[in-house]
Amino acid sequence: MSTVTKKELIDRIAKQTQAKRLTVKNIVQTFLEEITAELRNGNRIEFRDFGVFETRTRASRVAQNPKTLERVNVPSKRTVKFKMGRLMKQSISAPVSQSTKTPKSF
Amino acid sequence: MSTVTKKELIDRIAKQTQAKRLTVKNIVQTFLEEITAELRNGNRIEFRDFGVFETRTRASRVAQNPKTLERVNVPSKRTVKFKMGRLMKQSISAPVSQSTKTPKSF
Repeated sequence: MSTVTKKELIDRIAKQTQAKRLTVKNIVQTFLEEITAELRNGNRIEFRDFGVFETRTRASRVAQNPKTLERVNVPSKRTVKFKMGRLMKQSISAPVSQSTKTPKSF
Repeated sequence: MSTVTKKELIDRIAKQTQAKRLTVKNIVQTFLEEITAELRNGNRIEFRDFGVFETRTRASRVAQNPKTLERVNVPSKRTVKFKMGRLMKQSISAPVSQSTKTPKSF
């Protein structure tokens, strides 16, 4: 397993699409920023075949410190959930043939 | 909450970067396909500030049908996990000020 960075993908996309590296960089960067902005606004982003990004919110609540009995307001919190799209799922969830893990026997 | 599609983002990015719509479309499409290909190969994709995509694998195992006692091979399965990056987290997980949910009182 290796880690692929944005820079590597930008280089590769520039080669494949024959667009200027700077153009690719700007477009990829704007793309990621737009996704972040939409998620911040609570919107759902759907890329057919790839997947869906959406936020989940935990409501704010009042918690109590068990020692001091002091009531503390815990603000609402959001996280981002990614759900695979159809093609991604087919591609990813297929049995891993090169897996070195062997089935557990009884 | 509304759903934003790839098409909408492509239009917006074309305006912002003043690149041709077709160029943006090709680059965004190649970008998503490259991510899928890397995930299929079991690699981790890291976009600083945005987040990390990686696969999680459940090992294949032999299950038993409790009625027939027949042993069935359950192949390994993979899913994609997205973890927010630093900037995304700051932007997303901040208290939702426009939330209509009020704290539960005791």
